[in-house]
Amino acid sequence: MRLMVGSEQRREPAVYAVDGETAVNLTQQAPQIGADLMAIIAAGGAGLDQAAGAAASQRVPIAGIKPALPIAAPPKILCLGLNYVDHVTEGGYDIPTYPAIFIRVLTSLVAAAAPLIKPRCSDKLDYEVELMVIIGKGGRHISEDNALDHVFGYTVFNDGSVRDYQRKTHQWTAGKNFDATGAVGPVVVTPEELPPGARDLKIESRLNGQVMQSANTSEMMWPVAKTIATVSEFLTLQPGDMIAMGTPPGVGHARNPPVFMKHGDIIEVEIEGIGICRNPVVDEGLDSVSEAAQ
Amino acid sequence: MRLMVGSEQRREPAVYAVDGETAVNLTQQAPQIGADLMAIIAAGGAGLDQAAGAAASQRVPIAGIKPALPIAAPPKILCLGLNYVDHVTEGGYDIPTYPAIFIRVLTSLVAAAAPLIKPRCSDKLDYEVELMVIIGKGGRHISEDNALDHVFGYTVFNDGSVRDYQRKTHQWTAGKNFDATGAVGPVVVTPEELPPGARDLKIESRLNGQVMQSANTSEMMWPVAKTIATVSEFLTLQPGDMIAMGTPPGVGHARNPPVFMKHGDIIEVEIEGIGICRNPVVDEGLDSVSEAAQ
Repeated sequence: MRLMVGSEQRREPAVYAVDGETAVNLTQQAPQIGADLMAIIAAGGAGLDQAAGAAASQRVPIAGIKPALPIAAPPKILCLGLNYVDHVTEGGYDIPTYPAIFIRVLTSLVAAAAPLIKPRCSDKLDYEVELMVIIGKGGRHISEDNALDHVFGYTVFNDGSVRDYQRKTHQWTAGKNFDATGAVGPVVVTPEELPPGARDLKIESRLNGQVMQSANTSEMMWPVAKTIATVSEFLTLQPGDMIAMGTPPGVGHARNPPVFMKHGDIIEVEIEGIGICRNPVVDEGLDSVSEAAQ
Repeated sequence: MRLMVGSEQRREPAVYAVDGETAVNLTQQAPQIGADLMAIIAAGGAGLDQAAGAAASQRVPIAGIKPALPIAAPPKILCLGLNYVDHVTEGGYDIPTYPAIFIRVLTSLVAAAAPLIKPRCSDKLDYEVELMVIIGKGGRHISEDNALDHVFGYTVFNDGSVRDYQRKTHQWTAGKNFDATGAVGPVVVTPEELPPGARDLKIESRLNGQVMQSANTSEMMWPVAKTIATVSEFLTLQPGDMIAMGTPPGVGHARNPPVFMKHGDIIEVEIEGIGICRNPVVDEGLDSVSEAAQ
């Protein structure tokens, strides 16, 4: 299934089943589905069956749905830092033998179409297209062989990074956690619609229509199954956890000359078979923030 | 006030007002106080007034209260890595010009008295005593002058760290996020009971009764107010957020020979005027885990 969380004008947030350019409001037909994906995830396979059963009704154009975060409050947002070998070398890092993992907090995320905020204190806001995994079934010490059974679905992530703050110290936390710099969504695709582990999918970012990153998810050094096994060696994964899988080469700060996002830009990140997450960039300091947010 | 979250035998989790060795169950008298500190924090000053008003009733020994996390689900758990100069040099790091910040997830935390779990995959579980700040009033771009108005209270933190995993890459996330390796509590002290910013307090850790770290909170390079200002430059602080303030020298991995925690150890971390967080250490792999948890 292709699922999306959002709201039509004058309606409450709801879960939609997406088919092409139209969608069905599942929550309206089955209120227990709730206002984000957590209830479907918590219900396991039955949740998806229920969603599928509700999907045969009135269709609305997805253009009329304002996206919201697929999970309103994910228990964790784990992120891999260096997972495509050519991105490692463009950043001047050594090829790692263990994934570089950092964490984002919820205040750093926005939904697709919402403004990404270029902060006052920096001109170095960069884009990063990434595959985002949403965990369905939690667990600890998950084997690589069983890992894909723990995936609820896949979505698209723009791991917006404020480069000068990312490198103020060896810990990337500050540069990866500015308010409203990471974009998620809008569509979550369940695994049966994609190759195992979402491998072999084209992954691309475009700034104002110009291709900046273009790669394939098969180039990840830690594929999804291996990542779930690695992470669950040290922590318990929970339903609704998100894991961002790292970005391919072509980021702005490694270009010559460097390219950073500025007020008025449109950044699109896309993964084949999943969808496009498109966001405008808005200066924190301008009065137009609230207007651009519409 | 001195507040504690926990449960007496056969009772629901509740908020207690602590005075010496006894405490009053505030939630029992005023159910809107809830099962952790979030409702009191959300109600601002009125929440504390209500808690104080409820505190004149039947007293129970605190020895009969099993501590729980002061905030069941903090929006963020931010941690400073290198904030005492002598701890920076013992770890082989340069003196930083910006705080090294990392994030812990909730699955890594336990309450006071609960077992800290030494994982199967490592023998390098280390202790770190730290001051923990609990945010009361949220905000962004908080000035250093106003920062202490945003503090709800202070507690004690043991930032348990799995050293080999902490240093598998430059990002410390894995070593700082093993399940059940960080201990918080049990008592949260509101600011009027302590010096401004909880400065000038003795801070100490003891492993099986032997003093391992002994320092003073006035030695922090980023005191509480400066930390709140620094962090809120990039993100919005929210009520219930926790900020761990870094550890002084004397950690186990920097000793000669190194000292790590093992099954059967008792680790105590203490801050003057706040309290002691004492936890047993239990091997992940042993059948005794559930027994030792009692």
